[in-house]
Amino acid sequence: MNNFTYYNATRIIFGRKTEYQVGSEVKKYADKILLHYGGGSIKKYGLYDRVVNSLNEHGIQYIELAGVQPNPRVSLVRSGIQICREYNISFILAVGGGSVIDSAKAIAAGVPYNGDVWDFYSGKAQIKECLPVGVVLTIPAAGSESSTSSVLTNEDGWIKKGTGSELIRPVFAIMNPELSFTLPAYQTACGAADIMAHVMERYFTNTLDVDFTDRLCEATLKTVINNVPIAIKNPEDYAARAEVMWAGSIAHNGLLGTGREEDWASHRIEHELSAIYDVAHGAGLAVIFPAWMKYVYKHNIPRFVQFAVRVWNVENDFQNPEKTALMGIEKTKEFFASIGLPVSLKQMGIGDDRLEEMADKCTNGDTKTQGGLVKLKKKDIIQIYKMALE
Amino acid sequence: MNNFTYYNATRIIFGRKTEYQVGSEVKKYADKILLHYGGGSIKKYGLYDRVVNSLNEHGIQYIELAGVQPNPRVSLVRSGIQICREYNISFILAVGGGSVIDSAKAIAAGVPYNGDVWDFYSGKAQIKECLPVGVVLTIPAAGSESSTSSVLTNEDGWIKKGTGSELIRPVFAIMNPELSFTLPAYQTACGAADIMAHVMERYFTNTLDVDFTDRLCEATLKTVINNVPIAIKNPEDYAARAEVMWAGSIAHNGLLGTGREEDWASHRIEHELSAIYDVAHGAGLAVIFPAWMKYVYKHNIPRFVQFAVRVWNVENDFQNPEKTALMGIEKTKEFFASIGLPVSLKQMGIGDDRLEEMADKCTNGDTKTQGGLVKLKKKDIIQIYKMALE
Repeated sequence: MNNFTYYNATRIIFGRKTEYQVGSEVKKYADKILLHYGGGSIKKYGLYDRVVNSLNEHGIQYIELAGVQPNPRVSLVRSGIQICREYNISFILAVGGGSVIDSAKAIAAGVPYNGDVWDFYSGKAQIKECLPVGVVLTIPAAGSESSTSSVLTNEDGWIKKGTGSELIRPVFAIMNPELSFTLPAYQTACGAADIMAHVMERYFTNTLDVDFTDRLCEATLKTVINNVPIAIKNPEDYAARAEVMWAGSIAHNGLLGTGREEDWASHRIEHELSAIYDVAHGAGLAVIFPAWMKYVYKHNIPRFVQFAVRVWNVENDFQNPEKTALMGIEKTKEFFASIGLPVSLKQMGIGDDRLEEMADKCTNGDTKTQGGLVKLKKKDIIQIYKMALE
Repeated sequence: MNNFTYYNATRIIFGRKTEYQVGSEVKKYADKILLHYGGGSIKKYGLYDRVVNSLNEHGIQYIELAGVQPNPRVSLVRSGIQICREYNISFILAVGGGSVIDSAKAIAAGVPYNGDVWDFYSGKAQIKECLPVGVVLTIPAAGSESSTSSVLTNEDGWIKKGTGSELIRPVFAIMNPELSFTLPAYQTACGAADIMAHVMERYFTNTLDVDFTDRLCEATLKTVINNVPIAIKNPEDYAARAEVMWAGSIAHNGLLGTGREEDWASHRIEHELSAIYDVAHGAGLAVIFPAWMKYVYKHNIPRFVQFAVRVWNVENDFQNPEKTALMGIEKTKEFFASIGLPVSLKQMGIGDDRLEEMADKCTNGDTKTQGGLVKLKKKDIIQIYKMALE
């Protein structure tokens, strides 16, 4: 186990009707806020009214910035920063899923910064100061509601990049599983792939002596695997939605990575896909992760055997661990397919014409590697894209 | 799953040599502190010197209050409060295990309070304000380093009571598993029983639809069960000590209880034992918990079956779930015995002469019940003590 520091101060307010508490929570931080959200779904299902009523009840002024898209764009973030400065706003409330939250985090970090907010994503600058962000979560997927990360897309070159800082961790996250009842099956499945990927990026490590966090990872994966099919079949199953929502937060709040090197190659490889083709991040992960597994598993067969046996209940073939490992990968792919996700680039309508371009961007022109379990170069990433084709 | 709020802002600084960071951590909060510890063990093994050097390097003044005993006493806490007031101290640094930390928390809550600190434990008052507490942990057991609870013993009547508040959660916990290398086998085993009990108090619930936290509980129990025997056999096995230390914190930091009713009868029943007989809390739990299980398991056989199968790998006898449930209880008891703990009151030299007195104290003269899974009255608790006799 490696040394680590762990600090997570997001207040989780979880359960039925908790969105009615949003005004009293916000009031602890500010009287004037930016209310940030996406499209019309929060209006369609009444959430918008409940949030706004609660803010009004507590005398909180809000200025709205709607229009966050999946794979959120830096241009909208820049508008948000300008609004906050102009109106002297010191708190951002994100109502939505990972895209809205990531966008809110970017605004919050950008307001007190002198340069352009993209600097935090391009690696040119580090976040040193940040406005507080609060969340009303509607989509269990990104885990952004209590994570230190934010991912943005820059339309100038369609570059998708992430940044991380303890400072951008939301101060509270209101999580009512009922708010996810209206999520269509496909989006529910994409969320599941994202949550599972967050766990697997931490699970596949060469760090030894990580028994406890291994087991916590396996517990989280099994919870998602058991409950997502129920939520897809019966969208208003509170129990299943609640399990997935809570697991989705823990998957990415840092706990599961304590004391271990993490991987993150699959996420980076997927980011290139969704930057260019604007596919759903979860769907992209469902395609990329099994391909990545097949490309790297030989580097650490015991870990892939443990994954197969403990997560997927594959019976261990003691004479042939490789076979067991491959069964685990196959089960992962089968699961993604069973919940309606694509498992090949072809199924997403993506051909082989830009693979090299994506691998090149992913490795900064082959100047840096991706991944912890295996350090992947441009040529490796091209191979992984190729394995994902069909 | 029940609604819940979860907030845990203890900064965990985990790993080898982390105690050298104590001065820089404390410096964020105060320049003058109370240095609180127990007996001579921290001096014997050099930890005291390392802590004091680090404090000196950062120009932090400290006043020492040593002498915390296992089952910490309110009298020493009162002295600590007086010292803090007299010297205008605004930070308590606890160097030790659960007793030292619980004592430090009591001092921290007592300083800004006008009445007597015992009021928080007797239930007469709620904690409304508290000095910050920092921890250098030496014993993985109580989980007090990132928990909201503190347990004290009042010598006036030998009453042992707990209190709880988010305000007393330590602001940081420095956790170097090497510091537990010198723990004798018996104390290591007592710690294991305490950690397991913290998980089991949460695990045995009637709340339905708690799949995720069930699995997190099982992960934590399995980690302790696998690693404690290694740590006992080879006290300097860093990996095993680290697993146990991190699991011990998570076991009691609140995460595993999110969304579920908890039990806590065994803890309360044990408190009466250690108040009167001054036995180690963990040893008392090893005796009481299996007896409690045998007394209550019929109220929720499926849960005890799940415990047996998932935690102890008992093969499920589908035709006879009760048999499976009983096997799980037997395995628990066998495990405690295997790591050198007593599993009967007799082994601790305790007879049947004060059982009624303890059951009476535990239920406030039969005016209140204990436990969540089954609400136990005085007569039930007497039976549990009796079942624990041999």
